[in-house]
Amino acid sequence: MDDLQLPRLRADLELVNRELKRQFPPEQEQGRVRDILADVTGRSGKRYRPLLLLLSARCGPNYAAQRPLLCKLGAVIELIHMASLVHDDIVDDSPLRRGQATVQSRYGKDMAVYTGDLLLARTMKLVFTEGLGQTGAALCETIERMCRGEIGQFDCRFRIDTPVERYLENIAGKSVALFETATRLGCQLAGGSADTVRNLSRFGRHLGYLFQIRDDLLDFLSSEAREGKPIHVDFREGVFTLPVLFASSSPKTRAELAELAELARQGRFASAETERLTAAVRRSGGLEAAKAEMEYHRASARRLTESLPSAIAQAFRGILDKLDLPDASGT
Amino acid sequence: MDDLQLPRLRADLELVNRELKRQFPPEQEQGRVRDILADVTGRSGKRYRPLLLLLSARCGPNYAAQRPLLCKLGAVIELIHMASLVHDDIVDDSPLRRGQATVQSRYGKDMAVYTGDLLLARTMKLVFTEGLGQTGAALCETIERMCRGEIGQFDCRFRIDTPVERYLENIAGKSVALFETATRLGCQLAGGSADTVRNLSRFGRHLGYLFQIRDDLLDFLSSEAREGKPIHVDFREGVFTLPVLFASSSPKTRAELAELAELARQGRFASAETERLTAAVRRSGGLEAAKAEMEYHRASARRLTESLPSAIAQAFRGILDKLDLPDASGT
Repeated sequence: MDDLQLPRLRADLELVNRELKRQFPPEQEQGRVRDILADVTGRSGKRYRPLLLLLSARCGPNYAAQRPLLCKLGAVIELIHMASLVHDDIVDDSPLRRGQATVQSRYGKDMAVYTGDLLLARTMKLVFTEGLGQTGAALCETIERMCRGEIGQFDCRFRIDTPVERYLENIAGKSVALFETATRLGCQLAGGSADTVRNLSRFGRHLGYLFQIRDDLLDFLSSEAREGKPIHVDFREGVFTLPVLFASSSPKTRAELAELAELARQGRFASAETERLTAAVRRSGGLEAAKAEMEYHRASARRLTESLPSAIAQAFRGILDKLDLPDASGT
Repeated sequence: MDDLQLPRLRADLELVNRELKRQFPPEQEQGRVRDILADVTGRSGKRYRPLLLLLSARCGPNYAAQRPLLCKLGAVIELIHMASLVHDDIVDDSPLRRGQATVQSRYGKDMAVYTGDLLLARTMKLVFTEGLGQTGAALCETIERMCRGEIGQFDCRFRIDTPVERYLENIAGKSVALFETATRLGCQLAGGSADTVRNLSRFGRHLGYLFQIRDDLLDFLSSEAREGKPIHVDFREGVFTLPVLFASSSPKTRAELAELAELARQGRFASAETERLTAAVRRSGGLEAAKAEMEYHRASARRLTESLPSAIAQAFRGILDKLDLPDASGT
């Protein structure tokens, strides 16, 4: 977010970052806990969720008065995101996250379980002590939805016949819920009207889908050889994303994808299979279909910005534009 | 707790159980989530923590008026306990808990991570929606202490030179914190005086130590052959409990215990080692020392009941008496 033009938005995000750091002062921690927490909270991130929250808050009349509280809520939302990543990495068995070793790979799964719990406990304490109690139930519901989405995804593992609707339901919990909550609670806390809150909530939802489906697509549009980053990790783990599920709904590729899925289940998914998967998904139109779904959410989100104050609408559209795919996408 | 004589105490516990069931109505759950939640919340338990909370509340002037809220808080405390068990079983790799398959062994570690999270989120939501917000920060602090205790325990794994003080610090978080919180918040919510709250908080702390150290001792006093239940599971996992740490502080047994610890670390701890461990800990006086520590906490807890209303004091003493060791303890 290098080109945020809105006055004080960068300062707001700075406050969010300061709040995040303030939560786990290193001098109050010892040994292993200090290392892990410094590791997790010290990671840079794009802070998309606090950003969406703060932008949404500017659509309410009490933004200025509620600014300190809003920045705290931004930190809370980011901490929930961080805690969920720590636990997700256990399940995904990920060695790396954005090029850095995950908690589970560096300190063990057991440490990751309790570090995630500790982060969540500290986050909810912040809600209780900082006058954010009115948002508490909604935040807990969101965490629950996130868990349900993850459980749903786990439940569908290695099932190449997972219906697209089921997949969308899973990501609605896993990824979309926190975006939606950020925009909704931001506007609510700033006293936005019921209409504006509803609009921003829908905006957050569409943006969340856009975000996740784009992520799924990027995995098919990047080249392992070119970028030195493993691709199709999801597929290997049995998580079949939207391009795959669209492709498998085509009779021509269903059998081949089922075979690849079985190889993944047996842990026999190597570089030849990686190439076969990419080719099958491209050939069957899975990429186009997923891209169309993504563009539907981008367009819906964009339409929802029309009723917002123009400076905010412009900032939101800037975010939508950034969430694009590389040119050489071949789709 | 078959012989609870206090009027309405059984009815209170019944309300706690009803609240627990009400939290996860099966008709609102689907598939895997429904199975897991029914599994976890349907398990019978001794409900020690809600019981302590409700007894402590009877030492406050507003017990009757606050009774419905107190029963909800009892359910909250029990849910925190349940969630922690689900996550602990991941770390301990336990196949069974009280003779029933654990979530992680039945549904996988990944499911256990999210089920524990979901339980916690639902629990905190209950705190927000049921007017228990005043207890929220304290509950979060307790969860954090529990996590720190578990992390501390994990940090000490396979270290036979762990100081006894460090072990006590770990169980203070892992086990004692929730007992202490139950007695303290119960009395506070019922409007108990600062003195009574402090007394009951200390009572809960001593009872928590008694509970955990007794558990550690039982592992050394039960016979695998006789009871068909595996013993020294903690040691195998590298968790060295109080009898072991006391034993290893004696120069005579230190070398042997270090050798056994190393075998455990290498996964080479079989039935011969089980017998050697039992013998070494007995020989070195580790059992007596741990038993003395346990009795110190029992006596301290008992002394604290003296200033309480006699019916409550009697009930508390009944609990203390029950937490005894089998006669054939050989100590």
